[in-house]
Amino acid sequence: MAAAELTAHQLIAQHRPTLDQALETIRTRAYWSPHPEHPKAYGENGSLSLAEGKAAFDALLGTRLDPGQPGTDDWVGGEVSPYGIELGVTYPHADIDVLLPAMKAGQRAWRDAGPEMRAVVCLEILKRISDRTHEFAHAVMHTSGQAFMMAFQAGGPHAQDRGLEAVAYAYVEQVRTPDTAEWTKPQGKREPLALSKQFTPVPRGIALLIGCNTFPTWNGYPGLFASLATGNPVLVKPHPRAVLPLALTVQVAREVLAEAGFDPNLVALTAERPGEGIAKTLATRPEIRIIDYTGSTAFGDWLEANARQAEVYTEKAGVNTVIVESTDNYKGMLSNVAFSLSLYSGQMCTTPQNLLIPRDGIRTEDGPKSYDEVVADLAKSVGGLLGDDARANALLGAIVNPDVKARLEAASGLGEVALASREIRNPEFPDAIVRTPVIVKLDGAKPDAEAAYMSECFGPVSFAVAVDSAEEAVELLRRTIRDKGAMTVGAYTTSQEVEQAVQEACLEECAQLSLNLTGGVYVNQTAAFSDFHGSGGNPAANAALCDGAFVANRFRVVELRREA
Amino acid sequence: MAAAELTAHQLIAQHRPTLDQALETIRTRAYWSPHPEHPKAYGENGSLSLAEGKAAFDALLGTRLDPGQPGTDDWVGGEVSPYGIELGVTYPHADIDVLLPAMKAGQRAWRDAGPEMRAVVCLEILKRISDRTHEFAHAVMHTSGQAFMMAFQAGGPHAQDRGLEAVAYAYVEQVRTPDTAEWTKPQGKREPLALSKQFTPVPRGIALLIGCNTFPTWNGYPGLFASLATGNPVLVKPHPRAVLPLALTVQVAREVLAEAGFDPNLVALTAERPGEGIAKTLATRPEIRIIDYTGSTAFGDWLEANARQAEVYTEKAGVNTVIVESTDNYKGMLSNVAFSLSLYSGQMCTTPQNLLIPRDGIRTEDGPKSYDEVVADLAKSVGGLLGDDARANALLGAIVNPDVKARLEAASGLGEVALASREIRNPEFPDAIVRTPVIVKLDGAKPDAEAAYMSECFGPVSFAVAVDSAEEAVELLRRTIRDKGAMTVGAYTTSQEVEQAVQEACLEECAQLSLNLTGGVYVNQTAAFSDFHGSGGNPAANAALCDGAFVANRFRVVELRREA
Repeated sequence: MAAAELTAHQLIAQHRPTLDQALETIRTRAYWSPHPEHPKAYGENGSLSLAEGKAAFDALLGTRLDPGQPGTDDWVGGEVSPYGIELGVTYPHADIDVLLPAMKAGQRAWRDAGPEMRAVVCLEILKRISDRTHEFAHAVMHTSGQAFMMAFQAGGPHAQDRGLEAVAYAYVEQVRTPDTAEWTKPQGKREPLALSKQFTPVPRGIALLIGCNTFPTWNGYPGLFASLATGNPVLVKPHPRAVLPLALTVQVAREVLAEAGFDPNLVALTAERPGEGIAKTLATRPEIRIIDYTGSTAFGDWLEANARQAEVYTEKAGVNTVIVESTDNYKGMLSNVAFSLSLYSGQMCTTPQNLLIPRDGIRTEDGPKSYDEVVADLAKSVGGLLGDDARANALLGAIVNPDVKARLEAASGLGEVALASREIRNPEFPDAIVRTPVIVKLDGAKPDAEAAYMSECFGPVSFAVAVDSAEEAVELLRRTIRDKGAMTVGAYTTSQEVEQAVQEACLEECAQLSLNLTGGVYVNQTAAFSDFHGSGGNPAANAALCDGAFVANRFRVVELRREA
Repeated sequence: MAAAELTAHQLIAQHRPTLDQALETIRTRAYWSPHPEHPKAYGENGSLSLAEGKAAFDALLGTRLDPGQPGTDDWVGGEVSPYGIELGVTYPHADIDVLLPAMKAGQRAWRDAGPEMRAVVCLEILKRISDRTHEFAHAVMHTSGQAFMMAFQAGGPHAQDRGLEAVAYAYVEQVRTPDTAEWTKPQGKREPLALSKQFTPVPRGIALLIGCNTFPTWNGYPGLFASLATGNPVLVKPHPRAVLPLALTVQVAREVLAEAGFDPNLVALTAERPGEGIAKTLATRPEIRIIDYTGSTAFGDWLEANARQAEVYTEKAGVNTVIVESTDNYKGMLSNVAFSLSLYSGQMCTTPQNLLIPRDGIRTEDGPKSYDEVVADLAKSVGGLLGDDARANALLGAIVNPDVKARLEAASGLGEVALASREIRNPEFPDAIVRTPVIVKLDGAKPDAEAAYMSECFGPVSFAVAVDSAEEAVELLRRTIRDKGAMTVGAYTTSQEVEQAVQEACLEECAQLSLNLTGGVYVNQTAAFSDFHGSGGNPAANAALCDGAFVANRFRVVELRREA
């Protein structure tokens, strides 16, 4: 192997301060990010400007994206943007009997590099991805259907933040045990017993990242970087509709690994043919020792039950609830909830689905509002937010796939429609399917309504569920979290008693709670280094982003001891 | 509930310094223990002396041990000491439909107490157990068959150390996330976004400890204290032959919990009728969210496959290897290995089973020794160590159960016997079954020998396996760890090359390595706060004692955020 172009010294000098700041921030959980959130922050110091990013993306269309990895037996592709354009990019389809052994070849040197070197190599990968944020933004937009600004932010800096957060957790977990220790045990009048000990973090083996359609980078980076930073090679299997963002990621990772003197095959990609479903085959290979997955509950449960040779981290589906019991900022509540329902057409795992509202109405600073008034005002608020088509397009993005569209269309048959979904034209992308959310009224006391609100209806569908009381709302919240899982819970109340009851329900059923949000932070958004995404303690996900448990079992520590 | 007799202030004042020292030691991994190892260190400041401990144990015999817990539908017992005496103690048999709900009742208050209060309550439990170390020593001796000094040390201070270590890991893991955070995100010229956040570690639910026969306290305390310190109630299901040490532990824990103002039902016991096998029923109850288990591979695998609602931590069986390739301290090597084979009649999960020796012999400081010489000298060394019956009894203890005896008796048919097992009389306990280890020669090149050395033969049985070369020894070591698992690996070599190869095998296959031990530390012993017991990365155990991964997933963190 040629001499490394990137030396440890350079990498540590460049990235150690960022790592240290990340380590400090996961302790304080204050606000921090090294990745700019404004499109205009890019274009200097080697990063691509908005126009350059667009040009770089356009140049990718219709090409073969070749990461230069061994064991490629075919080139596959076929992504069609939710905005209607065909990407025409093809990617390697791996012969895994060739690729997996090749990925193992560099594992020892990567292990021996140690936690700090691995961390700064990961940070260099993230830095280069950050420099190409505008290019990634288009790749995310045209695979997930997110609107440009969201694809730019959530697919760019926010995803990079989550990757960096995982590196920080991985690093600190590995250095909790010292490299060496001298152990001397007194023996009274005899010579003490003395041992010299060495401790080495060792990887588990190849990690498999199974990507998702809606947030390929944001949901993919935590597992990818947690595994890589703890010494494991990572095989990336993107969602067939969202290959490009992760293929670019693999390409960058391989470049950096090679330049730093490591085997680029430590990170590799495999795309799949339509309907091939290679995730099952990959997930049960003995070489695969870690799996990160975001997607349906059915396949997540299958992985947990069947990929027994691996540590399996899943983020599945849930039913997110917002309780609206009372508020001292009625307008703020309405606009906050309206935004949460609208953002990315409700296609976030964190979007509220069930709005539990007492059938006798709620208290507000303007006096009582009936259930019907609250629902009508919320519908009006969503309508207002999305009344202008340009603004609607910028918020909603596009419907990611036909299943979401079908669910949306079926939803109006589930109950009384408080707000009908509206079709919106996207002048730039006429083939994009853009829809505003539907809000359906349901009576929580009617058994036939329960089938609707107790199932996840992923997409721009919300249920305004009338409940008998705050107590019933809390009880239904508990049951929903316990039986269906929840990534997020929201509540609006001015009552100390109700607040306590909701909080206790979230503590006992293990769900993350946002209380009385009326401003510019929304229940469906979490910030890296500060907020936990998921709890790992209810059926929606068996892990949280990011905590000690997410990284601690991706490596093991081997001790060598000898007499001193 | 009456006012707590033990206040938080008292408990913190008394135990925080010990906790802090434990926290420091798991970072440095230097030697430390707050629990005295010498029998004479006890008898003052409220601790039981040797004579008082014996009297306390004698007073227990033939009694009903009543922890005062709800839902007891029967009293069961029947322990017979491996030393021949019937304990005659009876214990509660739980109606789990009554007991489990009762155990949940105190969970909220225990959660709300927070990590520090839980830690110091756990330390108070350990302190009271420590004070009764001499009583526990007899309980461990007469259930495990360990000799008195070992039962005293391993069942007393060393087990308490492992419990304290788990509390330290649990504490530090919980306080990695702050209780509260203020998050302020700049918004250019607009008002910053500001949130106040609260983070609460929450328990998973009831933890089940399934105890083992040979080390009820040493193997039981890590899981028990890790779960309790992270807020989970703990149900203790001891091995039917080793109930007393854990029943006493439960009794102490309940006393301390009650005195500190918590619900004593946070820790409870259930014994079982002969052959009842209640572990399967308990392990799959939905209330059980964590399981700690030490025992057979078959049942450990069953738990991992079937107790899917729980986090399962298993220590199962393995095949431990010592490679003898060369040494510059031949006598030291022989006496060290001889001791390791003899201690507690080889009934430790860490006892070496396969001694891999080149068939062409080894290099020593006295010149070359043939395979036959090495085996004969080792046999002589074991013979010498155990030549005196009093010393033999003090080292060997008693055979723990008829299965071990049967395996020992069958072992001499597996190959040429280099050292025959000898029956030893125990004058104090004439019914004790005491046997010296057998060493059987096997040819590693013969396929029929492999069936013997590639299976765990738990008990005082070792195989001196002739191998073609150091390379073959390392290859066999790798295969043994990978296929059968290993709690420990030992190696004797003066060759840098062989040392590297063995170390690399242990790093890749994930096993803990002791190199060239010739003094008073043995491959089968690990010290809390410094050595890892098991690696969690090979089939012998899916967890290590103790590390971040052992505690990090016993609780989850729930966040509550609101606008600041």
